[in-house]
Amino acid sequence: MRTNWKLFGVLGVLALGMIIAPGAFAQEEAAAAVEVAEAAPEISLEMFTINNTWMLVATFLVFIMHLGFACLEVGLTRAKNTVNILFKNTAIIAIGILTYAAVGFNLMYPGDFSVAMFGGGFFGFAGPGVGTDAAGLTAAYNPGYTYWTDFIFQAMFAATAATIISGAVAERIKLLPFLIVTSLYVAFIYPWLGSWQWGGGWLSEKGFYDFAGSTLVHSVGGWGALAGVIVLGPRIGKYVNGKINAISGHSMPLATIGVFLLWLGWFGFNGGSVLSADPGAVSFVFVTTTLAAAAGVIGAMVSTWIVQKKPDLSMVLNGSLAGLVGITAGADSVAVIDSVLIGLIAGVLVVASVILIDKAKLDDPVGAISVHLVCGIWGTLAVGIFSENSFVTQLIGVVAYGAIAFPAALILFLAVKATLGIRVSEKEEIGGLDVGEHGMEAYSGFQIFTSQ
Amino acid sequence: MRTNWKLFGVLGVLALGMIIAPGAFAQEEAAAAVEVAEAAPEISLEMFTINNTWMLVATFLVFIMHLGFACLEVGLTRAKNTVNILFKNTAIIAIGILTYAAVGFNLMYPGDFSVAMFGGGFFGFAGPGVGTDAAGLTAAYNPGYTYWTDFIFQAMFAATAATIISGAVAERIKLLPFLIVTSLYVAFIYPWLGSWQWGGGWLSEKGFYDFAGSTLVHSVGGWGALAGVIVLGPRIGKYVNGKINAISGHSMPLATIGVFLLWLGWFGFNGGSVLSADPGAVSFVFVTTTLAAAAGVIGAMVSTWIVQKKPDLSMVLNGSLAGLVGITAGADSVAVIDSVLIGLIAGVLVVASVILIDKAKLDDPVGAISVHLVCGIWGTLAVGIFSENSFVTQLIGVVAYGAIAFPAALILFLAVKATLGIRVSEKEEIGGLDVGEHGMEAYSGFQIFTSQ
Amino acid sequence: MRTNWKLFGVLGVLALGMIIAPGAFAQEEAAAAVEVAEAAPEISLEMFTINNTWMLVATFLVFIMHLGFACLEVGLTRAKNTVNILFKNTAIIAIGILTYAAVGFNLMYPGDFSVAMFGGGFFGFAGPGVGTDAAGLTAAYNPGYTYWTDFIFQAMFAATAATIISGAVAERIKLLPFLIVTSLYVAFIYPWLGSWQWGGGWLSEKGFYDFAGSTLVHSVGGWGALAGVIVLGPRIGKYVNGKINAISGHSMPLATIGVFLLWLGWFGFNGGSVLSADPGAVSFVFVTTTLAAAAGVIGAMVSTWIVQKKPDLSMVLNGSLAGLVGITAGADSVAVIDSVLIGLIAGVLVVASVILIDKAKLDDPVGAISVHLVCGIWGTLAVGIFSENSFVTQLIGVVAYGAIAFPAALILFLAVKATLGIRVSEKEEIGGLDVGEHGMEAYSGFQIFTSQ
Repeated sequence: MRTNWKLFGVLGVLALGMIIAPGAFAQEEAAAAVEVAEAAPEISLEMFTINNTWMLVATFLVFIMHLGFACLEVGLTRAKNTVNILFKNTAIIAIGILTYAAVGFNLMYPGDFSVAMFGGGFFGFAGPGVGTDAAGLTAAYNPGYTYWTDFIFQAMFAATAATIISGAVAERIKLLPFLIVTSLYVAFIYPWLGSWQWGGGWLSEKGFYDFAGSTLVHSVGGWGALAGVIVLGPRIGKYVNGKINAISGHSMPLATIGVFLLWLGWFGFNGGSVLSADPGAVSFVFVTTTLAAAAGVIGAMVSTWIVQKKPDLSMVLNGSLAGLVGITAGADSVAVIDSVLIGLIAGVLVVASVILIDKAKLDDPVGAISVHLVCGIWGTLAVGIFSENSFVTQLIGVVAYGAIAFPAALILFLAVKATLGIRVSEKEEIGGLDVGEHGMEAYSGFQIFTSQ
Repeated sequence: MRTNWKLFGVLGVLALGMIIAPGAFAQEEAAAAVEVAEAAPEISLEMFTINNTWMLVATFLVFIMHLGFACLEVGLTRAKNTVNILFKNTAIIAIGILTYAAVGFNLMYPGDFSVAMFGGGFFGFAGPGVGTDAAGLTAAYNPGYTYWTDFIFQAMFAATAATIISGAVAERIKLLPFLIVTSLYVAFIYPWLGSWQWGGGWLSEKGFYDFAGSTLVHSVGGWGALAGVIVLGPRIGKYVNGKINAISGHSMPLATIGVFLLWLGWFGFNGGSVLSADPGAVSFVFVTTTLAAAAGVIGAMVSTWIVQKKPDLSMVLNGSLAGLVGITAGADSVAVIDSVLIGLIAGVLVVASVILIDKAKLDDPVGAISVHLVCGIWGTLAVGIFSENSFVTQLIGVVAYGAIAFPAALILFLAVKATLGIRVSEKEEIGGLDVGEHGMEAYSGFQIFTSQ
Repeated sequence: MRTNWKLFGVLGVLALGMIIAPGAFAQEEAAAAVEVAEAAPEISLEMFTINNTWMLVATFLVFIMHLGFACLEVGLTRAKNTVNILFKNTAIIAIGILTYAAVGFNLMYPGDFSVAMFGGGFFGFAGPGVGTDAAGLTAAYNPGYTYWTDFIFQAMFAATAATIISGAVAERIKLLPFLIVTSLYVAFIYPWLGSWQWGGGWLSEKGFYDFAGSTLVHSVGGWGALAGVIVLGPRIGKYVNGKINAISGHSMPLATIGVFLLWLGWFGFNGGSVLSADPGAVSFVFVTTTLAAAAGVIGAMVSTWIVQKKPDLSMVLNGSLAGLVGITAGADSVAVIDSVLIGLIAGVLVVASVILIDKAKLDDPVGAISVHLVCGIWGTLAVGIFSENSFVTQLIGVVAYGAIAFPAALILFLAVKATLGIRVSEKEEIGGLDVGEHGMEAYSGFQIFTSQ
């Protein structure tokens, strides 16, 4: 118990620091950001309002993806670890949003590390009449959205990367170390890497293209997942005497709900990445996104039916996510027919990848690496194949992100492993993390097999 | 296993054909469709953008209905068939959207069969800069939405008809035959029948009125459900020695989640059928839709409490759907007080219908025929009672749709039955379709009674 | 059985009266309401359409909160009472909307009791071409929304108060008495109290501020919950020989789904309370709402980890709701950094409150009193601390609402207790309300421990 105290004493201090510290240089920071937007753009108040309204709709759609991730992860793992997974996912979005406010937002846009860290972060803007210039609330800031919309839409994105990791390391990672690693990943690694492209950094200057984040969000999350899986090792009983044992998820309805909510949220994830309500662009993105998801389902369905002789629901679910991740980089710039092709290939790819990753004895309970890393890379490269963008530049981007994201995640996981320890005890893993970490059961009253 | 290979070899060829073939005559088709919209309408870019944004919101709301259907169907059936139902519902939306793109959309609008089949379908439009005229992306196409929005909103509708069938034939139909029947139904029957009214066909010329599809969507789905139930016969143990045995659903929370999601989606289903963001029309439709759903709950609650002595949750849930289906045909054209009446009567009707259909030994596990066919007919006729539309014309429409939809579905089901067989083996039905068709359980680790 | 008949004969008469009676003086009422809006405001049709569209989006978001409440309440209680809770929550929204149409809406705005009761209520407006002046459908009624939008947005709010009560009295209250009490509370108490502030009544004249209803909705619901808990007494086995026994909820996934849906819905609850799509105001409210929820999670997580040594998921879930309730009164008027502080304190407060209320032997199965009453008061007072509004006036408002809401609810509960009886029999409570009140199980086929 003493350990616990010490550890989240640290957590508490971090949280408080995050909240109090930023106020310091608030005024300067606010002034700096607002100066950027001096000239009012040529846009009517009506158009600005529509754009902003759509961006807020996209924001709540991305928000609901976090519930989707939680349901999917819970559904594909065992009943005894349910509370732990739900806890992680609830905590991640809260931590992710607050750290993004404290440092991430200003680290990513404009990417000035010193301003972000010492200038007050997003909290520098203290509220109406207390520091925010009117420019932040009008089209003078951006014709597509207000300053506040900009922040909240991006903040919803940020926590996604951490959530992707969550699924891969499920059922064996200690709670506090997990929260620390993912907090740091979301607060620093994700926004820094994001600034390369969306912050107007070197990759965007090179002509790299990643519309809504096949690489910036999904691969970055996927690299973190891969690092976590390597450092943690497989769950007990997964690989025994060279044999691969399937560990079934405990609720396919939850997994399916999760996937449908993710698909729903993707309308905001991709549709909001247009950064305005432009009718042609947003509706086109809706079409490519949907067709890719549908084709992903078909691709996975046909492959799994052939390979496994029976149509596997979890593969089909991952197939739709694969299609969605695959189309994310090019949803606005590939032909409709090609969005089908991209999704179809992603659906086949995810089935192959899940099988191969399992053969490599990398234990990823929900297939996060296959869905987000493999299909994130595929989607980014597909932009180089199916649109006018350069394949080589796309490849450079993919490699560059991997070259930083993976080692960074690896270092974080190893550092935590060396200090706090990262894996629950064997006894706790077998008994379940719900009782071990949280002292409660997810399904009180239900008879559940102990081996599960 | 050999059979499986052969069968979805066919499926694979179909899927590929669907994707590759349409490219052929793309340019001509695109040109033809765009010609229709030569004159730019008198509408501001702002208004066009709002309209289009609302239609996209309506689109994602209709999308979420598919999750609603999945949850409802799963909740009202037994645990052992859960994976199968989730699989069907995930596959249906994917197949439905892709077939609608390939043939359905152009078959329904403008209803030119030859263009739809040989002109490339929706895929004829190959994407930005590769075939789509700018007219498809501006108010020149339609003041309410872009070409892409038109397609994606309608595509979300199309799969609904198949999903309605899914619930009625649950727990005993083979997977592949089901997918084939519903694919053909969605690809050809639904859009052809739809073209009679929404495609500007003969019924619309006669003055038939069906605002959002009490008949065009719900009855059409309901007729398919009825045909399926007749061809399949009841589940084992449902009717024994003239006695009706209730087979309880395994998760009332899932059923309730399903109904609330359907209600939510209906705001888009009916609200989007205004085909613009017109403030008066859309808000009026929100009001009638909500009041009818609420009245449906009350109607079903009071009836079931009287008839069954205890208030039955599944009846009340179906009551809200009954109210929603009932108001769908006239949501924009009946008085507010009449929307309450229509919903109330639908709620009573669904309780009576569920009981009578059961007495007729038609085994419909989720009450799909009662909700969608019976209340779809009621809602269509109600337009002839509560608005200025002719009752006789409404009746003609109801009969005409039944006269085609039911035999068409019957032929499809019988054809599949004669060739592939349609019903799982007795052993598989008792053991559950999850293990039989998919080789997996929905609730791994939970103790579930074998008889269930 | 005889009792049942008699009782809901009353219910049926009430329902019918509600539907038929209002028609009477319809025309006069309609005329009166429309007169208010004679001068068309200075707003473009485009802006009016955007505003109205956003308000309808907010409406469906608030609608989905009812599913959130249902899932949360079900998840935090025992499996044997699931059907009963789902039934209550489905019935409440239906009854709430219909009674709000019949009396609530006109009682709250403009608060003229005689018009509301005898003038036809909302149903006075009979529909297009049957009584509604065009003014109700244009910006002449209100620049932010049509007459219909006004009603439907407010109607979704109204049922919330009843739903809050539902959670607190769960697992032991009889169905019919519950429905009667909450119907009367929603039809009369809630709108009358609401008229004090939102109807332009005495509190609004005093300068009281409650942006979206920390007091008007949440405290009012919370006071009802407190009254119900007192009248009902604790569940069997909860407090035995001075010892407090925790009664675990049966589905933490459902509880978590509930909280995420509530959070989602709150974007509409608070965002819609701007009453237009004003870009600055709505996006600012999105930010404060989200940050408060996130901070509530952190506040509860840290407190529970310290106090209970293990991080408690249900506390963290309630923490996010606490943050949301806390920010509701001032979401548009406190600084961003203060929204974090308000949420953080609410998160700590809810943990302390749940523990103290349990020590006081007030058995509130879902923590409704702590979340909605305690944090509702906190949020209202916080407006007096963190904005320019007077703390004293805020306190007066808090006290005034409590002074009416609590006794009113108490009288309702006591009256029902004296006449119909309010609590199920001991045998039924132990066996579960699902079988007792509804004759069905929620999880047919699952092995569930009888003691649960």
